[in-house]
Formats: sequence, C-alpha cells, structure tokens
Amino acid sequence: MTIDNKIQAGNTQTFKDDCIFPPVGDLEIRWRAVQKYLLEAGGDACLIATHVNIYYLTGMVFTGFVYFSVEGYPLYFVQRSFGCEGAQIVAIRKPEDIPGLLKARNIPLPKNLFLEADQISHSEFLRLEAAFNPEKTGNATAILKKARMIKTPWEIGQFRISAAKHAEAYRTIPSLFKEGMRDIDFQTEIERQMRKHGSIGIFRTFGGNMDIFMGSLLTGDNAGMPSPYDFALGGGGMHPCLPIGATGEVIKKGNSVMVDMAGNFTAYMSDMTRVFSFGKLSEKALDAHKLSMEMHDRLMAEGKEGTACADIYKWSLAMAEKAGFGENFMGIKQQAKFVGHGVGIEINELPVLMERSKDLLQSGCVFAFEPKFVLPGTGAVGNENTYLVTETGIEKMTVLTEEIILLLDAV
Amino acid sequence: MTIDNKIQAGNTQTFKDDCIFPPVGDLEIRWRAVQKYLLEAGGDACLIATHVNIYYLTGMVFTGFVYFSVEGYPLYFVQRSFGCEGAQIVAIRKPEDIPGLLKARNIPLPKNLFLEADQISHSEFLRLEAAFNPEKTGNATAILKKARMIKTPWEIGQFRISAAKHAEAYRTIPSLFKEGMRDIDFQTEIERQMRKHGSIGIFRTFGGNMDIFMGSLLTGDNAGMPSPYDFALGGGGMHPCLPIGATGEVIKKGNSVMVDMAGNFTAYMSDMTRVFSFGKLSEKALDAHKLSMEMHDRLMAEGKEGTACADIYKWSLAMAEKAGFGENFMGIKQQAKFVGHGVGIEINELPVLMERSKDLLQSGCVFAFEPKFVLPGTGAVGNENTYLVTETGIEKMTVLTEEIILLLDAV
Repeated sequence: MTIDNKIQAGNTQTFKDDCIFPPVGDLEIRWRAVQKYLLEAGGDACLIATHVNIYYLTGMVFTGFVYFSVEGYPLYFVQRSFGCEGAQIVAIRKPEDIPGLLKARNIPLPKNLFLEADQISHSEFLRLEAAFNPEKTGNATAILKKARMIKTPWEIGQFRISAAKHAEAYRTIPSLFKEGMRDIDFQTEIERQMRKHGSIGIFRTFGGNMDIFMGSLLTGDNAGMPSPYDFALGGGGMHPCLPIGATGEVIKKGNSVMVDMAGNFTAYMSDMTRVFSFGKLSEKALDAHKLSMEMHDRLMAEGKEGTACADIYKWSLAMAEKAGFGENFMGIKQQAKFVGHGVGIEINELPVLMERSKDLLQSGCVFAFEPKFVLPGTGAVGNENTYLVTETGIEKMTVLTEEIILLLDAV
Repeated sequence: MTIDNKIQAGNTQTFKDDCIFPPVGDLEIRWRAVQKYLLEAGGDACLIATHVNIYYLTGMVFTGFVYFSVEGYPLYFVQRSFGCEGAQIVAIRKPEDIPGLLKARNIPLPKNLFLEADQISHSEFLRLEAAFNPEKTGNATAILKKARMIKTPWEIGQFRISAAKHAEAYRTIPSLFKEGMRDIDFQTEIERQMRKHGSIGIFRTFGGNMDIFMGSLLTGDNAGMPSPYDFALGGGGMHPCLPIGATGEVIKKGNSVMVDMAGNFTAYMSDMTRVFSFGKLSEKALDAHKLSMEMHDRLMAEGKEGTACADIYKWSLAMAEKAGFGENFMGIKQQAKFVGHGVGIEINELPVLMERSKDLLQSGCVFAFEPKFVLPGTGAVGNENTYLVTETGIEKMTVLTEEIILLLDAV
C-alpha cells in the first residue's frame, strides 16, 4: 500500500507554504514508533480520536479517527470528507461505521483495542468500545505520549522556527513598556507582538483542567500567588474564573517582570522565560537570577543522552538550597515539584524533570528547563529555555540574552 | 449548616471588586437546580471534577472536587487549600480521601453516584468510581448542562457586563482598519482592543475537539471554507494545526469582513457578530444581510417562553429558502445545521436552535442567534446577537448597530 496524499492536497488550497505539512517519511517515523509501543503493550490496534493526536499522526486536523494496526499504514476515517479520496482515507458518517469498513477490507478486528483513555471522555470511550466490542481495551494516551516524547526531524525543524520567532518577538518587549503600565496592559502589548510575529494563538495543554491564555506575565509579589494549575508559577489572575497570571497591578520600580509566553508559532511550541526589570532589583534577586543562569550552564555542560530527568531536578534543588534559596525555588507558598518538562504540540509533554521521574534524556527529546525563584518584595527571577537533546549533548533552541533586561534604561 | 465563605475571602486578596464573586444566595439557586435534576434522574450524589462546573457551583476555580447529595449543602474537597477553612471546605490530598471523610461526617456514601461522564477522561472516571465503589453511576454532565441552561440573576448581570464591553470594543473596529491589511492583522488589532476592554482571553468551549483562539474574522471566499469544528462558519485558518478563521489574505474591496469574537469579559460570554465592508458589497449580499436582520426582528417579535428551539431553526431556514438563499444559509460547502445556541461559561451550551432540539425557550435562557449567509465572491453577511428570555418576551443583550459597517468611509 502506498501513501496517498490527496487529503493533504485537498487542504493545501488555503496555505501558501507547503513545508507546513510534514513529509510522509516523517509521519512514517511516528507511525512506526506508535506501532512499536503498541506491540510492546500487547495491543492489536488503536483508534485515535483527539485532534492533538490526529494532528501528530497526520499533520492535519480533521473530524474523524485514525486507525492503526500494529503493522501496515494507518487509515484515516473521516467525517465530512468533502470528496477527499485515497487509499488511506475512508469516509464515514459515525464511528460505528468503522468495524464494518475494516471487515470489508479484510482487516481483522482487534482483540485488544487501545483508546485514548486519559484524553477522551468516559462517554466517548464507552461508545468507541461498544462499536468494536474488543476482548480488552488499553490506554492509547500512554502510547502516544511515549512516541511524542522523541521528536522527528521535521518536528525539530518546527521547534526551530518557533524558537526563532519567539526570540524575535521577545526582542520587542523593552520598547513596549511605559511607566505606570499595569501588568495586564504590558502583557496585552506583548500578546499583540506575538501574534504579529505569527503566533497561532491557542496554547495547548494536556489535561482538562489546565487553562491558560497566551502565557503569563508576573510582577512583584503576584509571582508568589498560588494557582490551581500545574504550571511552574501561578499569579492571582484578572478574574476568579481564570486565577493565573497578571492581576491588573501597576508595575512598580524595583520589581521584576517575568515574561513566560508560549512560543506557538508552529504547532510545536518553544517555551521561554525572560526577566525584565523596571529599576534596579535587589542584590538578592540578582544573585538568584545568576544562580538560575548557572543551572542552565550546568545543564548544557552535563546534560546528554542517558541523563536521568530526576537527577536534573535533584541537583537544581540542591544548588538552590546550598545558595540559601531553597524556600524561594519554584514558588513560595506553593512550590512546583518540577524544574522542567517536555514540550511539543502541548506545553506539558514528557519527560518531566521531577524527583519521581524514571525517564532518561534521549536524543530527540525537546524540553523546557525553568529554574525560577520568587523573592518577596521583588517578584520572580530566573530564565527558561527550550533544549534539544542531540547525539552529542544538549542544544539550546531559545537563543536570546539571559541577563535581566532593563525596561526604560534611563530610570 | 450555614455557608462559610472563608475560601472566597481567602481568594479575594488579589481582586479589587467583590461583585465578581457571586452572592451565596445566587449559588444556592444553582445548587437547588442541580439537586432537583439529580433527584429526577435517580441519583444520590454527584462528584464534580471539572473547572467549569466547579466555577459554576462555587464562583471559584480550585484544585479539587465539589460533592453534592440531593439535599443539604455541597462540600468543597480542596487539594492545596493553603489553610482555607470552613464548614463546607474539606482539605484532601487525593480523591480517594473523600469517602472516608464523608463517613466521618456521618454522610452515607451514594448508591448511585453521578460523575461528569461527557467531560472527564475515561481514566479519571474509573478512578473516581473506584474510590466510591457505588452500585451504579450516572452522568453528571447532563445534569449540569440542564442546570446551566437557566441562568441566575447574578449570571444574567455578568452577561450584561460582557455584552456592554463587547459592544464598546466592537465600536473601535472601523478605526483599526487600514487598506492593504491582511485579515489576520486586522484580527490581531481587534484582539488587542478586546483585551484592552477587559477580555479574559480564553474562549471556553464544550467538547475536547472544539479549538478556537479568541474568535474568528472571515473575509471573502474564506468564509465558505469548511472546518473540522462545530462552529457556525469555518475558514481555512493560518496553520494546519488550527484550521479555522483568518488565512492571511489581504482584505479586498467589495468583500465583507465578518467579525465574530467571543465576549468573554466575565466568565459569562456574550456572542456577537457584525459585518464590515471595505467598499460596497453586491446587491445580493446586502439583500441577504437584510434578511438576517428580518430574522432577528422576527425572533424578537415572536420568541417567548415556550417557543420551540426547533421552530426557530425551521422558520429561519424557510425564510432563507423562500428568499432564494437556501444554499447560502449557514455556509456553502458545509452548512451548519443550527442557527443559534445557548451561551454561558462555555460558548456552546443548551439550548441548541436546531431541527432535532426538543428544548423550549425558558425564562433565564441566554442564547445566541446567528442567521448567516455565505455569498461566493463577497464573503459572509448576517448578524449574531445574544438574547435573554424573560417572563415577558425576549431581550437583546448585544446592542450595537446592525447595518453593515463601512470601513474607510471615503472609499
């Protein structure tokens, strides 16, 4: 069976630059990874229903499902197919049509069907399970997470595009600041620059309760406010329905401004935090920021294939404690128990740099490292960069000055 | 048992305006509605885990669960409670702690426990079910959707705030346009104005596969492009990972520009579409827009408590067909099979104005009505307004000129 790209071709009419679609060879790397992990987990097939995983597996978003056996090519079961045709594309009205269509193609129905148990709703899981009536079901979310942890060459290229635009957009930040600005107004101007540089806007997270808009800007003591989300830092937010980030406070002299906006200039997000300062920060804050920079240097020097993610967390915490910043590390009232995380189509992918992680860095992992400190009276300091694990070490993808950047030089 | 508001008090420190928290009496209306529907469905209790429903039931977002029996007051089981205390607030480490804590309070465990089956993941459903081990489980999503369909006085007030700011932000739109602008650049400037007027940013939708950023701006033939989402119209989008809305095309003379941004200035979103025109539109487009305005007039004249939602769809379609616009109604290639929808914390709530709806309009319903037409060569026309069903009729919440608004008057 050969790959038929007509569905892609049918969709390209509105896009000028073909390279925004992954080459089939690159998709094939992903399909083989999913098949390998599926086989290891004892599955016969998986049926993928979420847009993020459909995008990962096809380079497109469509209404429908991707069906995979442990061998051969995936089938795209598409609702609303608008006449798209091809060897891999099968039009359906509803998921219950799929088993009959597989039989018609002499494809045996799976005994052990994997569905995205951590992502699709209970109701949808039951519906898909009933349509196939397999002997057993397994968790396709775990399989896809594992596959998505190791990025393909095209995906790595997408990160490079995101990271470059991310840095370009951040370079405009000092010019956007005016004395007397509220945190939210500064953030709004940064959001506009992100969009002007090509941000697609939505900030994809894994997990139903992980709401955030385009990212966060924290100044002063708001940086220490806990929030109900599993991001590194919190902030009180502008409204009780989204208690995270800027609160509408005027940015004060002597306070830091930490900018952590998602680099979603492609489907693959870079994650980058830089610290801005309106007036001079306290010596203690400068020391803590320097310590964060030293941690980044250590990661670049020591990190490589095989490094345990847990160890990175442990030495970061140890360095913080040794320098007397243990209580400021990753928050105050509520301290995040990780110092970094994989990034990709979603901001919180594998691996997680935390104590109980069993993951080792592998070539092709792309992750954010974000040792941050919250100083009462000042705010948050510390950088975040996105790194690629290569065969020879670690490459920094988010290249931009790491010193604290002065706002209104003259002040 | 009396209501203890300490958890609210604990959260207000970052908020200046107390009225952004609902009064307890208003929450109580919601609790009673949920209890009534739960009892009718044969449930003993429900355990709510999603942030949208936690916000609906408490006026806050926290990490944890809301537990409800069919009588009495809900309990807030809070992870990361930061010392918040109160009769209704119980600190937990994990959901498995809840049954023991209920027993300790002499609250019998439910035989029929309702969980948010259409919202939480299959894995989370199984985990919560195992923690309680009830004889039966039911679907709390359906219960909450029904309760959320009828808005309380405070919720209606929040819509009024959103709708007023929505109109104010839209009034700036003509001043943002410049000849030669791309659709996405025009949208970016509108997004900024929405934020400056207080938009909280995130656009909440029901359903895992309903991605959108802050709303959509459609010009020319892009308005007829199908998309994989269940919004009224589509558009090709800027990137294959989010195929909806603006595509980066320059806005052409003689084309319409349809602006449909979410009015999320509070947790309760108004939905409003207005049409802008760069140069004069074709007579046919002007006729179709007039027809949309007539449909809005008819809704205002005839709509009232007891009106069948299906009937509104049917007469809208009939009016479109009679005027020769049947093929342009709600899209071309892909026509939406609804002409409106309930709005609230999420943009797609009950009721849905579609042929197979069995819902009747009830006092307290807030819904968007959006009869739109796509004209090849021109783009989309037709308005969208948010309406409140009152005891005496229908009130328009989104008050702003409904004529097509000229961009660059001099052209």
